[in-house]
Amino acid sequence: MVFCKNYMQSFMGEFDIIKTYFSPLTIGFAGSLSLSDDAAVFAPPPKHELVITKDAICEGVHFIGSESADLIAGKALRVNLSDLAAMGATPTCYFLALMLPKNTSEEWIAKFANGLRETQNEFKIHLAGGDTTATITDKISISITAIGSVPIGCALQRNGAKIGDDIYVSGTLGDAALGLKLLSSLRGAESDEAIHTEKENWIALSATPPRNDNHLISRYLTPQPRLALGQGLRGIANSCMDISDGLLQDLGHICTASNVGAEIYATQIPISEDAKKLDTSLLWYDKNCAFEAAISGGDDYELLFTVPSEKAHLIPKHIINCTKIGKIIACNEVQLFDKNGGVITPSKKGFLHF
Amino acid sequence: MVFCKNYMQSFMGEFDIIKTYFSPLTIGFAGSLSLSDDAAVFAPPPKHELVITKDAICEGVHFIGSESADLIAGKALRVNLSDLAAMGATPTCYFLALMLPKNTSEEWIAKFANGLRETQNEFKIHLAGGDTTATITDKISISITAIGSVPIGCALQRNGAKIGDDIYVSGTLGDAALGLKLLSSLRGAESDEAIHTEKENWIALSATPPRNDNHLISRYLTPQPRLALGQGLRGIANSCMDISDGLLQDLGHICTASNVGAEIYATQIPISEDAKKLDTSLLWYDKNCAFEAAISGGDDYELLFTVPSEKAHLIPKHIINCTKIGKIIACNEVQLFDKNGGVITPSKKGFLHF
Repeated sequence: MVFCKNYMQSFMGEFDIIKTYFSPLTIGFAGSLSLSDDAAVFAPPPKHELVITKDAICEGVHFIGSESADLIAGKALRVNLSDLAAMGATPTCYFLALMLPKNTSEEWIAKFANGLRETQNEFKIHLAGGDTTATITDKISISITAIGSVPIGCALQRNGAKIGDDIYVSGTLGDAALGLKLLSSLRGAESDEAIHTEKENWIALSATPPRNDNHLISRYLTPQPRLALGQGLRGIANSCMDISDGLLQDLGHICTASNVGAEIYATQIPISEDAKKLDTSLLWYDKNCAFEAAISGGDDYELLFTVPSEKAHLIPKHIINCTKIGKIIACNEVQLFDKNGGVITPSKKGFLHF
Repeated sequence: MVFCKNYMQSFMGEFDIIKTYFSPLTIGFAGSLSLSDDAAVFAPPPKHELVITKDAICEGVHFIGSESADLIAGKALRVNLSDLAAMGATPTCYFLALMLPKNTSEEWIAKFANGLRETQNEFKIHLAGGDTTATITDKISISITAIGSVPIGCALQRNGAKIGDDIYVSGTLGDAALGLKLLSSLRGAESDEAIHTEKENWIALSATPPRNDNHLISRYLTPQPRLALGQGLRGIANSCMDISDGLLQDLGHICTASNVGAEIYATQIPISEDAKKLDTSLLWYDKNCAFEAAISGGDDYELLFTVPSEKAHLIPKHIINCTKIGKIIACNEVQLFDKNGGVITPSKKGFLHF
């Protein structure tokens, strides 16, 4: 791990920062060489292969920037772990490239490292290496490379969907997109009245027991990588991916990779109680809001997978609820049907971040 | 590999960009799954372990920004390969996170991808995955994760230097720092006269046969990862690292990790003919310029390693010239001696990028 030397020289040396905040995150993972070498060195478990993913998140695009640093750290790590979940992998370690404006405070770094520690404790993963450097911009960028392993040949992929497979999603869809919408409108709605109305709504939602924070916003800020589910789907699902760009768009990727089509039944798409509770007191709300978010909202990080019907009973639904929402068919598109069998044409296919 | 959707929608879809410019870079590496899945999947060779490094470079900090995109791509990849070289690893593949301002042209992306292709062809490495996204800043950031392998237990590390080891460096030192200085002064020296003088000097240097470009600038723009040397030092060197922050500072890391000290003989430090040719016609030049760059200049990416004297004949000097510059001793500092045995106190220890 290397710190650029023109970075925060004024109050703390580069190696002090590594020693104080990042080296402790490697404890328990010998392959990190305690961040003191040029690279990490380790082998996957016997008869396993590696699953490696790299996702970057940028301030103003993938996160707002005003979130607390521990939430930003958690999200950066979680979206990468979600890719491992989608492949059925067990996480091993991760590498961090942290690009920070020069005026970043030590307090921010401490909080960021704390967010990493909490997240890596939750998912039993360690920091193994990386790089922290200054940027001459005023925006933070974070790139994480997450590494996991699967028994050789057992990784879940997108290209295995078969005609006749049932299509499933885990959890509920659209929550994160609505959470971002709530969060954004709280930050700067067009009028004081709007802020007032939405704040009240937010507070009302926040107060809903047993949660002590808003579920929709929390879905956006702190996605849950479905690692246990992904691992449980090895040998059961014919195809799998995580939904980061919206159900319809991501299902399109599975269909393209597998050279099949899909039909989806709108009434079966799982929408959370919190999403259903949103109402017209929100200026941006209309009656299709929750449904549109569910089919095209990004950032849910639920798993989308296909299973042949004879294996349906093997889906580990005890880990998280999984809902059958459609079927793989022999065509070259994704079709969405309403309760009467009519075709629904969505207003947009994928979620536009911000 | 995921492209953020608000990125360059105007002229080219995200998946077209992947298909046109990045997927071809994976050909020959099946584990990339052609960038069509959530992650890459592969196993290291039998009886090998992985060596993984991640380095980010940011416009205005690690590169100027006005370099052509292929040079920027090459440098981003080369500095990571240098870390693999320092560990004695054979490169396997790499992951790319490319964070681009929204107005980045397709031409830039094409040239960047071309620079990656040329570099990966030279070093027999393939793209395996990654992420390209928009930033809301006007500066480019690039994070690369490079992966290699070594026979289990054979990675070169920093912590193995033994008292009595001879200290070696490959190639010549200080060139890259002088190249950056030349390049920066050509871009914007304090006066027309200075520009004139330096341009003439640059042109004179450029014309030196057999090179068709300036060697010092090329050392800065296109570092040479010493992969073959690193691999050849397995079982021979007791410790090794690449010099990215200056000889004295980096040797300090080896000494700290190995709990030893070092003495260095100034007259033995290898300085290139091009560096020696610089003269006082350059405004920033003084007589110690080349020497100061050699002991504290960054970006050379030569290997710094220690070898017990009985193994000196095994150093693969046919790959690149390696020069003995000092000895590991039992103290806790790095001492630099002049030709008369007097201690030299350098004006700075490590190189400040920009």
